[in-house]
Amino acid sequence: MTFEQWMHSVLGRVETALEHYLPAPSVEPAQLHEAMRYAVLGGGKRVRPLLCHAAGELTGARAECLDAAAAALEMIHVYSLVHDDMPCMDDDALRRGKPTVHVKYDEPTALLVGDALQSQAFVALTAEVLAPAQQAALVRELALASGSVGMAGGQAIDLASVGHKLTRPQLETMHRMKTGALLRAAVRMGALAGETPSADAMRSLDAYAAAVGLAFQVVDDILDVTTDSATLGKTAGKDAKDGKPTYVSIIGLEASRELAAQLRTDAHAAIAPFGARAQRLAELADLVVNRVS
Amino acid sequence: MTFEQWMHSVLGRVETALEHYLPAPSVEPAQLHEAMRYAVLGGGKRVRPLLCHAAGELTGARAECLDAAAAALEMIHVYSLVHDDMPCMDDDALRRGKPTVHVKYDEPTALLVGDALQSQAFVALTAEVLAPAQQAALVRELALASGSVGMAGGQAIDLASVGHKLTRPQLETMHRMKTGALLRAAVRMGALAGETPSADAMRSLDAYAAAVGLAFQVVDDILDVTTDSATLGKTAGKDAKDGKPTYVSIIGLEASRELAAQLRTDAHAAIAPFGARAQRLAELADLVVNRVS
Repeated sequence: MTFEQWMHSVLGRVETALEHYLPAPSVEPAQLHEAMRYAVLGGGKRVRPLLCHAAGELTGARAECLDAAAAALEMIHVYSLVHDDMPCMDDDALRRGKPTVHVKYDEPTALLVGDALQSQAFVALTAEVLAPAQQAALVRELALASGSVGMAGGQAIDLASVGHKLTRPQLETMHRMKTGALLRAAVRMGALAGETPSADAMRSLDAYAAAVGLAFQVVDDILDVTTDSATLGKTAGKDAKDGKPTYVSIIGLEASRELAAQLRTDAHAAIAPFGARAQRLAELADLVVNRVS
Repeated sequence: MTFEQWMHSVLGRVETALEHYLPAPSVEPAQLHEAMRYAVLGGGKRVRPLLCHAAGELTGARAECLDAAAAALEMIHVYSLVHDDMPCMDDDALRRGKPTVHVKYDEPTALLVGDALQSQAFVALTAEVLAPAQQAALVRELALASGSVGMAGGQAIDLASVGHKLTRPQLETMHRMKTGALLRAAVRMGALAGETPSADAMRSLDAYAAAVGLAFQVVDDILDVTTDSATLGKTAGKDAKDGKPTYVSIIGLEASRELAAQLRTDAHAAIAPFGARAQRLAELADLVVNRVS
């Protein structure tokens, strides 16, 4: 199977899983469920679900188990986008090429969509397809990665940094929490959904995820200044306009490109011990660095 | 032990558990953690933790297990208050006798405090003191009770109802989701933290929780029109001002008082099969109906 065929197959599974793990639009309150589905379905690169499925191949995880974990990861990611786009945060009108939830509906709906998607992620992780001990392990990974020492904490640091000059280590800490924590959780949860991985394997996966997570952010910063809004599906040039520190603003465009290439090499090196079994993870590292949107 | 002594002891445990399960204020990002602690600690009636501990006595749950469940329940409750108080929702400045989080800090902080408290609740539920299968069962109860078919869904119906005339059954559906679901989860989670309860026992507890949950809301509506803000620790008379349907507005003050008394009787009847072991649950039903704030 080529990488493109594998991706196509996984993306199809993930969409079906999200359909399944989101409440049906006919269930009351119907407008809230419709808005949750508007935010989640039919868009997005699904990077976290792809990482989860790729890591699961290393530990022989069943596809059904990975579907539940992948759906939960994407719901957390989307809830964070919905809340970040709200007027009191980044105040953005465009996401995944569509009006943001608070523009399409209203602010209270956007707040509740985000809140309910977070809960729904933990509902998905307690699906019967996963053994109870796996459910518990996956919940802990996702809750820690989402909360104040992970994604939400990184967001708080990001907000506090607007208009300030960050050092490169401070910028890295922020991104390690804001986007890195959930990407790392995607890799770890995929692995944990199969046969319990060794401590060594988890260390290799953590190193891989750290490199891919940082690369993802560096490339985001590059694309924000080199690509137009239509291609990105979100407002381009926004970081500079908002006075947000980025890799491009701190080390420049060329050095950022070199850094992304180096992180790709680091990611490959981290999973070398797994050999051919880590092929999809290696290809995903390439995808993250070479993407154009 | 008198009821007052029992309550004093449980409230002390709950405060210690919340201190323990919240990130320390020294952990980065320090301002977010300080704001989370501001929202949660040193206030509130702790009705859900009390119900959780009382139900746990029926199934011999260890106090340490109930502490984790109680902390998680209170974090979810507080996150919902923090988000409900935000300007795009109820826009309230006073809560538990203190400035609300968005007034004391700012709107983005309030949004992130709520988001991070929800994650932290699931971190608490995966504490090692609980067996993995218990962790998984409690996570599912809490996630379903918090999300779009529970608390967040009730909130959505509440928002949609402003300025509309609800029938009494519609009002009941709204409250069953908005406050009832989490109160029910408090009772169920307490029981599930001990020896697995029988299906019969769970049905009795559900009936008890349904009566207490509704009584709680009826009394809230009564207090909103009969008590001042200083006593309530939140803004009084707000429902009428906001055009929100309440029991008092639909059936009147006297009928609301009679309904509360009837629901108290229903709650007692539901747990009669447990005999003296349900003493604390019976006393809590009395507390909910007789409270003055």
